[in-house]
Amino acid sequence: MTDATASPMVAVSKDELLGHWQGHRRVTRRVLAAFPEQEFFNYSVGGMRPAAKLAMELIGMTDGGVRGLASREWDNVNEMYAKYPMPGTQAEVLQMWDRVTEQIDRSWPTIPPERFGEVDKAFGVWEGRMFGIFQYWIDNEIHHRGQAYVYLRALGIEPPAFYDRE
Amino acid sequence: MTDATASPMVAVSKDELLGHWQGHRRVTRRVLAAFPEQEFFNYSVGGMRPAAKLAMELIGMTDGGVRGLASREWDNVNEMYAKYPMPGTQAEVLQMWDRVTEQIDRSWPTIPPERFGEVDKAFGVWEGRMFGIFQYWIDNEIHHRGQAYVYLRALGIEPPAFYDRE
Repeated sequence: MTDATASPMVAVSKDELLGHWQGHRRVTRRVLAAFPEQEFFNYSVGGMRPAAKLAMELIGMTDGGVRGLASREWDNVNEMYAKYPMPGTQAEVLQMWDRVTEQIDRSWPTIPPERFGEVDKAFGVWEGRMFGIFQYWIDNEIHHRGQAYVYLRALGIEPPAFYDRE
Repeated sequence: MTDATASPMVAVSKDELLGHWQGHRRVTRRVLAAFPEQEFFNYSVGGMRPAAKLAMELIGMTDGGVRGLASREWDNVNEMYAKYPMPGTQAEVLQMWDRVTEQIDRSWPTIPPERFGEVDKAFGVWEGRMFGIFQYWIDNEIHHRGQAYVYLRALGIEPPAFYDRE
């Protein structure tokens, strides 16, 4: 682990981090919505989880994550998954997604910028500087979305552009 | 696009960004090395590019990228791919990977922290704050590596852990 305080600081604004996160979330939502209903719940490659399960992991981690980031109160890692049971339709998953998107926007102004420099233990297990933990959530989303791109291609569906974050 | 300067600044150190990048590169190298030689060059799912081609895109973008970040001199976007012809063996691709890793470590101390706040046009085409462009390179790597995880699983190979960045 690099000592974060010994090297010069790079200026990054809180809104820039929010824009980065929400931009990725817009792409991920389009990827999730691109699946046909059946394949969203059932299709996978190489025994990996289908898109719906990836979506629910991201919903739990992001909803509990932004709450922990803003309030320092964390769901336990097991609650993180148990709290968000799989809905019966793709539309309901996307509605949960949209509620989390709004939750992020609502919470953001309440987070002091110093919070990203604090060391905390996310979900009771992952310890580190909050900036690194925050980055991990986005990295994890990009990683699983990369899987979903392959599922879509294998289904013969053109995925949304990776670089279009609007 | 969010106005990056209007919101409070979050403290992120230059070394933290380097550690984040190199940590991801260690994971990606393990993923590339996990492919058998033939499958590295030929295997794909859904008509997507095989791992070797993804590796060469990342090598070109990262090598030219860190040079542009440090020197403000950019390869043209077409040179970026043409400059790095596909080697004949997986070992040679991994050697190129390692040279880029060293290049990043050598260049890093020469980059002033303010450089990440400058607006530039990467590879002559992608305009934005250097911090965002830098993030894009990492995001793009995670995205393509996510694809490669599916290829490995489909081949019956257990991929390296996503969360282990050491």
